[in-house]
Amino acid sequence: MTADGNRPGDSVVELILPTRVSEANLLGNVHGGEIVKLADSAAGAVAQRWSGGPAVTGAIDDLAFLQPVHVGDLLRARAMVNWTGRTSMEIGVRVETQPWDDGSQGWLHVASAYFVFVAIDAEGRPRPVPQVVAGTPEEERRQREAAIRRSSRLARKQEIEGARGGPGAS
Amino acid sequence: MTADGNRPGDSVVELILPTRVSEANLLGNVHGGEIVKLADSAAGAVAQRWSGGPAVTGAIDDLAFLQPVHVGDLLRARAMVNWTGRTSMEIGVRVETQPWDDGSQGWLHVASAYFVFVAIDAEGRPRPVPQVVAGTPEEERRQREAAIRRSSRLARKQEIEGARGGPGAS
Amino acid sequence: MTADGNRPGDSVVELILPTRVSEANLLGNVHGGEIVKLADSAAGAVAQRWSGGPAVTGAIDDLAFLQPVHVGDLLRARAMVNWTGRTSMEIGVRVETQPWDDGSQGWLHVASAYFVFVAIDAEGRPRPVPQVVAGTPEEERRQREAAIRRSSRLARKQEIEGARGGPGAS
Amino acid sequence: MTADGNRPGDSVVELILPTRVSEANLLGNVHGGEIVKLADSAAGAVAQRWSGGPAVTGAIDDLAFLQPVHVGDLLRARAMVNWTGRTSMEIGVRVETQPWDDGSQGWLHVASAYFVFVAIDAEGRPRPVPQVVAGTPEEERRQREAAIRRSSRLARKQEIEGARGGPGAS
Amino acid sequence: MTADGNRPGDSVVELILPTRVSEANLLGNVHGGEIVKLADSAAGAVAQRWSGGPAVTGAIDDLAFLQPVHVGDLLRARAMVNWTGRTSMEIGVRVETQPWDDGSQGWLHVASAYFVFVAIDAEGRPRPVPQVVAGTPEEERRQREAAIRRSSRLARKQEIEGARGGPGAS
Amino acid sequence: MTADGNRPGDSVVELILPTRVSEANLLGNVHGGEIVKLADSAAGAVAQRWSGGPAVTGAIDDLAFLQPVHVGDLLRARAMVNWTGRTSMEIGVRVETQPWDDGSQGWLHVASAYFVFVAIDAEGRPRPVPQVVAGTPEEERRQREAAIRRSSRLARKQEIEGARGGPGAS
Repeated sequence: MTADGNRPGDSVVELILPTRVSEANLLGNVHGGEIVKLADSAAGAVAQRWSGGPAVTGAIDDLAFLQPVHVGDLLRARAMVNWTGRTSMEIGVRVETQPWDDGSQGWLHVASAYFVFVAIDAEGRPRPVPQVVAGTPEEERRQREAAIRRSSRLARKQEIEGARGGPGAS
Repeated sequence: MTADGNRPGDSVVELILPTRVSEANLLGNVHGGEIVKLADSAAGAVAQRWSGGPAVTGAIDDLAFLQPVHVGDLLRARAMVNWTGRTSMEIGVRVETQPWDDGSQGWLHVASAYFVFVAIDAEGRPRPVPQVVAGTPEEERRQREAAIRRSSRLARKQEIEGARGGPGAS
Repeated sequence: MTADGNRPGDSVVELILPTRVSEANLLGNVHGGEIVKLADSAAGAVAQRWSGGPAVTGAIDDLAFLQPVHVGDLLRARAMVNWTGRTSMEIGVRVETQPWDDGSQGWLHVASAYFVFVAIDAEGRPRPVPQVVAGTPEEERRQREAAIRRSSRLARKQEIEGARGGPGAS
Repeated sequence: MTADGNRPGDSVVELILPTRVSEANLLGNVHGGEIVKLADSAAGAVAQRWSGGPAVTGAIDDLAFLQPVHVGDLLRARAMVNWTGRTSMEIGVRVETQPWDDGSQGWLHVASAYFVFVAIDAEGRPRPVPQVVAGTPEEERRQREAAIRRSSRLARKQEIEGARGGPGAS
Repeated sequence: MTADGNRPGDSVVELILPTRVSEANLLGNVHGGEIVKLADSAAGAVAQRWSGGPAVTGAIDDLAFLQPVHVGDLLRARAMVNWTGRTSMEIGVRVETQPWDDGSQGWLHVASAYFVFVAIDAEGRPRPVPQVVAGTPEEERRQREAAIRRSSRLARKQEIEGARGGPGAS
Repeated sequence: MTADGNRPGDSVVELILPTRVSEANLLGNVHGGEIVKLADSAAGAVAQRWSGGPAVTGAIDDLAFLQPVHVGDLLRARAMVNWTGRTSMEIGVRVETQPWDDGSQGWLHVASAYFVFVAIDAEGRPRPVPQVVAGTPEEERRQREAAIRRSSRLARKQEIEGARGGPGAS
C-alpha cells in the first residue's frame, strides 16, 4: 500500500481548488490559515501514502508567504517527500495561484512550506517509514536542505532552552 | 483576458480535492451531487476563461457515473471546451478518483459530463464567444460528438413536445 | 420501509432552502453546481424511499437551467419517480425559486432535471425495485417521456460509438 | 413588497432540509442549536416579507423540544405571523421531522418555537409593520396565546427585577 | 467524569469565535440563529460535563437579543448551571461581542439565554443529575430566578391550555 | 483604534471552539491544518488590533504539535505580540485542548506556533507598527527568543542559499 518506488518524485500529490468567499477576509484576500490548511492536506496525503498508513502533523518547520491570493482564483499545492528519519518524514509543499481569468495559465508562487509528519500505528505510537533515496541532483539538494532545517530547528531549540536555563514551557 | 489560443487544449482546467466526511452518505460514498458540483466548478472556470468574462450553466446534457468515490480519496475533474456556438460553449468534464492509499497513483474513471455554458454580460444578456478550432483528430471527434448531443437534445425536445401536442411545462 | 403505494404521486419529496452567500458567484447568482446538488438530494431521497434502501446516482439524463437564482432567495426542489426498470429508476426533479421579498409567494421555474438512480445492496450490487404504476394521464405522460429519454440516451450512445468505430473512452 | 394579504395564513414560509453528519453530535442526533437555526431562518423569512424589509431577531420567547432528530432524516420548519405590535411581530414556528426511509410520509412534531422579530430601517431603527388580522378561530387562538406569552414575559421580567430590588444585569 | 465540585462556578464553559461572512445576512449582521447555535454549544458542553454524559436540549426558556453583532467581530458565550431538577438542568448563557478593532478589549452584552437540558442514557432515557449547591448570593439569585422561570413556564402552559379547553397541538 | 497600551499583555486574544466531526480524519483526530487555521485566526486578530488595521500572514516560523486533539473536545488558542520590527510583528500562539468530559477543566498543551504578520495599507504596501515594550521578565524572554528565531531564520536561509550557490526557487 506504500508508494510504488523510493524516490521523492514517486510521492508527489497535487491538490487544486478554486478559493471561495467564505475563506477570505474583508479585503478579499484568502486567509493565510486556509492556505496552510490546503498545504497540510497535500502533505498529509503524501505522508500517508509514503508510509502506507496513518500519519500526523508533527511540526511546520518554516513557511513563508510571498504574495496574496484573491477570492475566486485557483490555488494549487504540490507536495513531495524530501527526507526521511526512522518514523518521521519531511514533506515539502509549494503553493501557487492562478488568477481565475488568466488565459496564459501561468502559476504564481504563493508560499513554500516544510512539514514534519510522523507515521503512527492504530494505538498512536510512531512506526518506521520506508527510506527515501535521492536520485537527481535536485532531489539531493532537497534532502540536504531538509537536514539543515532539522539541525537548525534542534540548535535553535537548544539555544532557547539554554537562554532559559533549562527546558521550559512556552 | 481570454484563453491564449483557440484550440480546445488551450482551455484545460483541472481541479483536485480530497473528499471529506461531510460530503458522504451513510455508506461512506461521496454524494453524486458533490461530484456534479466539482465538475460544474471546473467547467465554469473553463467557460469564464474561454469567453473572457462571466458565464452561467445553461444545461447538463449527459452525465454518467461509472463507479463510487469513497470518503478520503482524491477526486479530480479535468475540463475543456469541446464546441462553441455563437454565445454558448459545450464543456466536457472527466472526473476521476485515486484511493488515498494508492501508491501507484493511477486514476479511475468516475464520471463523464457535458455542460453547456452561456457567456453573459453585466446585465445578464448573452454575449458572443471566441470560436474553438479543432486541431487534432481527438479534438475533431469531441466537436462532432458535441454536435450529435446538441441535435439529439433538440430532437428529443421536439419528440416530447410532439407527444404532448405542443410545448408544455414539465 | 418502501413507499406506501405504487403511484408516482406516492413518492414525492420536496426540499426548500434559503440560498446563502457562500453558494454564490461574484455576480450574486447561485452556482449551477449548488442547484444540481439540491436536485440530487431530493432525487436521492425519493430513490431510497421508493426502493426501501440505499440507491446511488447513475446518470443525469438532461438538465436545463431556465433562469438564475439570487443569493437569499428560496430554492425548492420537488422530485418524484417517473419510471422504473428492473434495478433503476428515473426521478424527475423540478427546481423553483421564490424571491425572498416576494409576498405573492409565487414560484419561478429554475430548472428541470432527470436523474437515473440505481438501487444497491450492502455489497454495492444492483437490487430489484418495486414497479411504478401510472395512474393519471399526467403520470402516463411522464412515464412515456422517460422512455423517450432512455431510448434517446441509448441511441445517442450508439451513434457516438458508431462514429468512433467502436466503444471508446471519452 | 409586503405580503399580499393581512391574514396570518398569507405569511406562511416553509423550509425543508435533509440533515447532515456535520450537524450531529456523537450519538447521531442533530444538535438543538441546528434546529433553532433552521426555525430562526424560517421565522426571519416571514418577518422580512410581512414587513417588506429587514427584520432582526429580538427574542425567543419559548421553545420546547419534543423528540430527537436523527442524521439523514428530513427536517421541516413551518412559520407564520401570530401577532403584531407597532414595530415587532411574533412568529410561530413548528418544526417536524420525517425519517429518511419512511414511505408513509408522516411528519413527527419535533419542536415549537415563538420568535419576536423587530422590523428595522437602513440605520437599524425600528419601523412600523402592517397589522395582522385574525380570520379563523385558529388564527384568533394564536393571537390570544401570543398575547399571553407577551404578558407572561413582561410579568416574569418584573418579578425577577423585583426580587433583585431593581433592574440588573444577568 | 462529572464536574469537580457542586457549585455553579465549577461548571463554567466559555466559547469565543470570530464571526464569518457566511454567517451574516445581507446587512452584514450575524444571524440570530448563529448566535443561538453558539449559546446552545456552550450550554451543551456545561450540561454534558455536569451530568457526566450525554444531554440534549429540552427547551429554551427565554432569550433576548440586545444588540446586533457585525461580521468579523469576536463572539463569546459564557455558560454555567443555574439550577438542577432530578434529570434536568437550567443552564444560563451570556453572549457578548468585541469589535475586531477594539483595543480596549471590552465586551458588549449581546444576548442572555436560559436553556433546559435533560441528561440521557444510551437508550435516550432521562437519568439523574448531580445537584447544584448555590454558594454565593449571586448563585442563590440565579437559582431563585431559574425557579421563577420554571413556574412561569408551567403557569403559562396551563393558562394557554386552559384557554384552549385542554391540551392541544400548537 | 490600536491596542490600549504597548505591552505584550495588552494584545492578548483568545479563541475557544468545540471541534467538529467535519474537521477530523478517519481516526477521529482533528487535522493539523485545522489547528493551524485557528492559531492563524487568533494571531491575525492580535496583529490587526495591535497595528490598528489590516495585516497579513508573512511567515510561520516554527510550529510544533505535542499531542492529538479528539473530535468534540474544546480547542483554545491564546495569542499575543512577542516582538515588533518596523512593519512586522511576531505573534506567539499557544494552542491547548480540554476533553469535552473533563470536569477538572485543565488544559493540555497541543501546539506552540510563532507567526510573522506584516501590517499593510489599503494598497497592500507595508506600513509601520507601534513598538512593543517588554515589561515583565517573561515578556523580555519572549522578545529575546523571537530575536533568536529571526536570526536563525535568516541564517538558515543564507546557509541554504550558500549551499545552492545563490538564491534559488524551492
